[in-house]
Amino acid sequence: MKNHQYAIAKYNLKIAQKELRSIHFLDEETDKIDNPSALLKHFLMTAFLDSQSIAIRGQKISQMMASFEEDALTYLDKNAPLSKIAFYNIALQLLHFEVGEDFLIDNSITKMKTLNLPIAEVNDPMNLYDVTCAWYLLLNTRTKRGITLIDDLANEGYFAQNYNSFDKPLIFNGKSMPVYDTSNLIREVVYVEAPLDTDHDGKLDLLKAEIIRPKESNKQKVPAILTASPYNQGTNDADGEKLTHNVNYGLKHKTPNQTSLSELSTKESVDLPAPREVEGKTRKAEQTFSREQSYTLNDYLLARGFAIVYSAGVGTYESDGVRTTGDASETISATAVIEWLAGNRVAFTNKFDNNQIEAYWSNGNVAMSGRSYLGTLQIAAATTGVEGLKACLVEAAISNWYDYYRENGLVIAPGGFQGEDADVLAVETYSRQKSAAEAIKNKDVWDKQLKAITEGQDRETGDYNAFWDARNYLNDAKKIKADMFFIHGLNDENVKPINVANIWKAVAPLKISKKMILHQGQHIYINAFQSIDFSEMVNLWFTNKLLEVENDADNLIPNILVQDNASEQSWYEVDDFDGRENVESVSLGTPEDGTRVENNQVSFKDNLSDDDFNKYCHNAKQWQHDLVLGDSQSAMTDNRVIFKLDKLDNDITLNGSARIKINAASSQDFGMLSAQLVDLGEDYRLSANPLPVDNTRISLGYLWREDYLREFKFEKAKSPFKKVAEGHINMQNRNNAYQVSELEAGHFYDIEFDLQPNVYRVKAGHQLAVIIYATDFDKSIRGNQDVQYTINLENSTIELPVNKD
Amino acid sequence: MKNHQYAIAKYNLKIAQKELRSIHFLDEETDKIDNPSALLKHFLMTAFLDSQSIAIRGQKISQMMASFEEDALTYLDKNAPLSKIAFYNIALQLLHFEVGEDFLIDNSITKMKTLNLPIAEVNDPMNLYDVTCAWYLLLNTRTKRGITLIDDLANEGYFAQNYNSFDKPLIFNGKSMPVYDTSNLIREVVYVEAPLDTDHDGKLDLLKAEIIRPKESNKQKVPAILTASPYNQGTNDADGEKLTHNVNYGLKHKTPNQTSLSELSTKESVDLPAPREVEGKTRKAEQTFSREQSYTLNDYLLARGFAIVYSAGVGTYESDGVRTTGDASETISATAVIEWLAGNRVAFTNKFDNNQIEAYWSNGNVAMSGRSYLGTLQIAAATTGVEGLKACLVEAAISNWYDYYRENGLVIAPGGFQGEDADVLAVETYSRQKSAAEAIKNKDVWDKQLKAITEGQDRETGDYNAFWDARNYLNDAKKIKADMFFIHGLNDENVKPINVANIWKAVAPLKISKKMILHQGQHIYINAFQSIDFSEMVNLWFTNKLLEVENDADNLIPNILVQDNASEQSWYEVDDFDGRENVESVSLGTPEDGTRVENNQVSFKDNLSDDDFNKYCHNAKQWQHDLVLGDSQSAMTDNRVIFKLDKLDNDITLNGSARIKINAASSQDFGMLSAQLVDLGEDYRLSANPLPVDNTRISLGYLWREDYLREFKFEKAKSPFKKVAEGHINMQNRNNAYQVSELEAGHFYDIEFDLQPNVYRVKAGHQLAVIIYATDFDKSIRGNQDVQYTINLENSTIELPVNKD
Repeated sequence: MKNHQYAIAKYNLKIAQKELRSIHFLDEETDKIDNPSALLKHFLMTAFLDSQSIAIRGQKISQMMASFEEDALTYLDKNAPLSKIAFYNIALQLLHFEVGEDFLIDNSITKMKTLNLPIAEVNDPMNLYDVTCAWYLLLNTRTKRGITLIDDLANEGYFAQNYNSFDKPLIFNGKSMPVYDTSNLIREVVYVEAPLDTDHDGKLDLLKAEIIRPKESNKQKVPAILTASPYNQGTNDADGEKLTHNVNYGLKHKTPNQTSLSELSTKESVDLPAPREVEGKTRKAEQTFSREQSYTLNDYLLARGFAIVYSAGVGTYESDGVRTTGDASETISATAVIEWLAGNRVAFTNKFDNNQIEAYWSNGNVAMSGRSYLGTLQIAAATTGVEGLKACLVEAAISNWYDYYRENGLVIAPGGFQGEDADVLAVETYSRQKSAAEAIKNKDVWDKQLKAITEGQDRETGDYNAFWDARNYLNDAKKIKADMFFIHGLNDENVKPINVANIWKAVAPLKISKKMILHQGQHIYINAFQSIDFSEMVNLWFTNKLLEVENDADNLIPNILVQDNASEQSWYEVDDFDGRENVESVSLGTPEDGTRVENNQVSFKDNLSDDDFNKYCHNAKQWQHDLVLGDSQSAMTDNRVIFKLDKLDNDITLNGSARIKINAASSQDFGMLSAQLVDLGEDYRLSANPLPVDNTRISLGYLWREDYLREFKFEKAKSPFKKVAEGHINMQNRNNAYQVSELEAGHFYDIEFDLQPNVYRVKAGHQLAVIIYATDFDKSIRGNQDVQYTINLENSTIELPVNKD
Repeated sequence: MKNHQYAIAKYNLKIAQKELRSIHFLDEETDKIDNPSALLKHFLMTAFLDSQSIAIRGQKISQMMASFEEDALTYLDKNAPLSKIAFYNIALQLLHFEVGEDFLIDNSITKMKTLNLPIAEVNDPMNLYDVTCAWYLLLNTRTKRGITLIDDLANEGYFAQNYNSFDKPLIFNGKSMPVYDTSNLIREVVYVEAPLDTDHDGKLDLLKAEIIRPKESNKQKVPAILTASPYNQGTNDADGEKLTHNVNYGLKHKTPNQTSLSELSTKESVDLPAPREVEGKTRKAEQTFSREQSYTLNDYLLARGFAIVYSAGVGTYESDGVRTTGDASETISATAVIEWLAGNRVAFTNKFDNNQIEAYWSNGNVAMSGRSYLGTLQIAAATTGVEGLKACLVEAAISNWYDYYRENGLVIAPGGFQGEDADVLAVETYSRQKSAAEAIKNKDVWDKQLKAITEGQDRETGDYNAFWDARNYLNDAKKIKADMFFIHGLNDENVKPINVANIWKAVAPLKISKKMILHQGQHIYINAFQSIDFSEMVNLWFTNKLLEVENDADNLIPNILVQDNASEQSWYEVDDFDGRENVESVSLGTPEDGTRVENNQVSFKDNLSDDDFNKYCHNAKQWQHDLVLGDSQSAMTDNRVIFKLDKLDNDITLNGSARIKINAASSQDFGMLSAQLVDLGEDYRLSANPLPVDNTRISLGYLWREDYLREFKFEKAKSPFKKVAEGHINMQNRNNAYQVSELEAGHFYDIEFDLQPNVYRVKAGHQLAVIIYATDFDKSIRGNQDVQYTINLENSTIELPVNKD
């Protein structure tokens, strides 16, 4: 374990004393204690629960060793000088490190340092104030189990012994404590009347929202966190599967055009039906629910006094409307709920009686949370500047749907989801059909809507068009008023990193708080990692934004935090992401030995034997392997060219997008080019997915929901390479994604395109390689067409974004 | 889905009416309803929670379709004749089958039949009584999500709306209902004074027990289920790993002996210290705990009013003593807790004050539950005939530790755990050392104890000795008084099926209730399967045994239930297991083409090239593949002989152990023989592990803990073979496991040994094969020795236990 904690607020003795009083470690009785050992014993006795007997708590203390010779109880009961090493011997045991297995008694302080755990600056032996400060810091230190000690004690029942005896909210070291009884939460449904009529039934769409909030919120207002999740009410996987498109067809020549960007942005104004007449008002919801589709970070926050609201939007189970996949109707689905939470929109208790219910329990400060589509709708909602939305925790989100399903005039699937498109996603999330009656009633309007999506997405050309422009949130990024916290996996091939890079650049000029974490995962959550205090950072941030506690969150949380790809459990800060401030232009040079160079030109074909083609269609991993490593026996050998750059003498870090600039020709009047930047070098690399750590279960509150501790570890065997980035372009879209240019067979064109951005450390002794090819078996359409591509080596380079440091 | 429900108790109109009244579906008001549709509407309104408004419940009903034209609300509100098809249209939707995806409206009754869901015998159209009976049956029918509808409603909050309004326990259709508030359970620790002093400190060992019980048990006694789990308080995985034995050493010649069985069974009598003097009595425990190491079936039972007790036994965290791996001390660790629960033993509130606490809340009826080691300790405890123990739910348990770590005079590891032994397991479970103070204090006694285990287990000879005899529960099987329910995976290579077969045969003559389920899993739990109502069977059984409800459990639950290996979601009953009533003796015939037969003898060697040896050591799967399929190029080709039996014209089912009878010689004065029975035939076969079904989460009570629905499915690709059974023998133990016979190099001996028992259907067109070899890379020691084995074909047969039907 190597600990990285950012969410420890600054403190001094006065703060420590005050806050320890608020969580009952100090009181009038303890003011009388005049011996440091006695004070530490008191802290331990208190930590082991007042609800347990003195004998049991003494038994617990005596199970720990304070020195080689003495158990902690014996040691402390002597009231002799308290050594720093004894304190940290006990501290490590409290943090669940085992003597023998994890550390040696005489080595506790060195071990604390090795683990990167904070050590209080105290005298040795310690005085009373030292014990107070060191104990305060220890409570805020993360245990081996990936949570802070105070959260660990909370999970043992520290606050649950007597929830009523603590202030609510209870802020300790800038973070909100789990002092809310999660076995006694209010769970209620409301129907928000959205300014939408997507199913054209002449009535505004009512959208179901599930609310979970502490009992206390009936009396004391709390902030709300909305997770807008179209998946939340169920999915239609079989139907989605059925609609999934065949991708084994060929690229075609496109008729050139001069489309301008402005003509794409058609905002239709829709005449909306009148709102329902409010026929009554109530504070009593009529509908409840049991097990919601939850998100463990929300569960963590629920125990800490934040209300959680789940809403799935138009066309989902028990809501009105139809699915639209990412357009303004979905944005409004989210903002309507935010408006209700902020007191600016009407909601009803059921779909018939027009009985209004207000979010009387909401303090009006709303945040959003969630990953993927759930993060996407945060960006969507934020770009409206909707009142009440104070903060977004955007994980692995789409900032522009074109960057999800398309790329530079090509149909490029999210990794692992060949054939998926906006219409497939619409069908999958149309959970309204789970009610048989609703499915039948709305069949016609839904069929029509689905047809419109299929047409609008246009799998024929792959061009950027009005459909995609209506789903490009970057257009309105400047309207964002909420503070934004982005989290994205640098290895996310589903929602690719360009999405976070672009929104990051778009919000750069805005006067909002902006944070970003770039991790080594794919399309995952990171809130149960051992090496980083993500949940605590989120707590600190939301406590600041929503509870308006001055806790220095914006200073404590790094602006950009990156997980290193070349070591375990290592995180560092960078100044910028994809800023392209220091770009090195490198000639591609001569391709790998064995490739035929003629007239300073190199060619590769795209078609394969039927057998090889089918093999790769069913095994994209094999294709990727052969693309990079395939020798002259490999089916890919003539289907790509590899340019190997010089072996590195020193580590370099790439930050941002590499840009391919080549002069190339197709043997046909159509063509696509793909490129990968690859790190070559037999080495240990991080596992693709984080692995469970010791099967450690993390409780998110006392006897509340749970998560499992995870971490990226090096794989057991070395691997020969790792893909750093990739990109694709339709040669006819060499100007941009919306304009089609002419392409003559055999004619050479200058073609530039960016690869996906990354922050990547290439180690000394390794070597970068650039691979140029056409069909991407994992993501592009696969026509197995008879095309030959030729690259003019003279004018072909790659621009590498080498970090300044 | 194909449903198999055994735990539906017989009922009639009177029972249905009475029980529906007890769960508030019927009352005085409903007695006035005179229209079948109105009665069904009332049932639906009630199912959708009284705590929700009438409008919301109407909304829920109107989301379902009753016919092609009408939603359920419209249909029922007409009060027209209620058709059976409309009832089952609605029923299937309540059971979470979706119209369109899962069934068509006009097809509901056929679909019920296809799914093997019970259909009430009613008139069409239905009368009032029909509706009552059909609704009653429907509530007891399993949904698509693998739980009964009444449990599904409970999970939605049906009982939780007002826990206080229901009888406790509430028996519905013979099963105990989840009417206990799991957010409000009592969690307390006691220290049971066991009649043991394993750490020789002159004081009886105090054993920690964690109790979880409903609040109501303070007033009304409840039954208790003990899970005795040595893993429960944590494990020392790193230390266990360290002690794991090297298995790459050679077999040696053993000196012949005439050991008799009787001389092995030495029962030492131990002088025990005097019990502690009780210094006080209390009903108030002093210690609590938060998240216990749970077992989902226990969680299911907790919501249904059974107290759950976890106890880890001697040498575990916060208990006294040292680990002994399966001997009488561990048995007594379990029975001591049972005795306390039955009022026959003293426990204290802590380890110092001698303050006695009784299980005043226990009704004295105790059961045990758990799998593997946890099941083993059930067999151990049951064989003492301890008072209070009424029933055991024994999953994948060891009945004789020799059959776990040894076989016929050989060290044979549990599959996947090469090098593990009784001492390794002792170290892994010695969680007492997790307290640093305890580890230091008991270091000497523990080192000595561990040494004794290592010596006793005797990895040198592999013979059955006094150490193993003290860990052979079969010796005392006749003392069992508790009713026994065995569950075992037919593919369990960890705790091999011989364990369940032997205990099953041992209890056969006893006048107790005996049940057995043999499933297609490995070493797994089966309580979240979609195709079988295991949890409900357990509920029925425990309700009968512990709550003493006359529910016909012993008749309803099949004596032996087997999961078919050759089809999905298929279970059937058999009369006996491993009864060997119909044995076919089949000559092995001539081995596969290519094997050299000389003088009607066939030979194979055991040694391999270093490369091949190392390869197989690290890849037992590859070894298994080559053993069965390896051609003349394979490294295994000369290291085994394969005898292929005739291709089958019809399916046959094997039931029990096949017996190998061969006349064989070793080229050395030592030798081991292994055999596998294999089903050859390219076919679809069940996955080795059950797979999640639709990511369906199963709540085990209202907002309580959860499990995931699972099921075995056919693998996506066909496979060429499946191992049916295997066995191993040291040629010097050809008489038995405890006597060593002489072995002269080159001399032929008659050798008989049983393969593991199985119940296995071999399909027509398939063919059985017998493979004879020596080293088992997955389980035996691996000496890579220069030995040649020769089999005399004339006198070599296999006895196949072919089922009579």
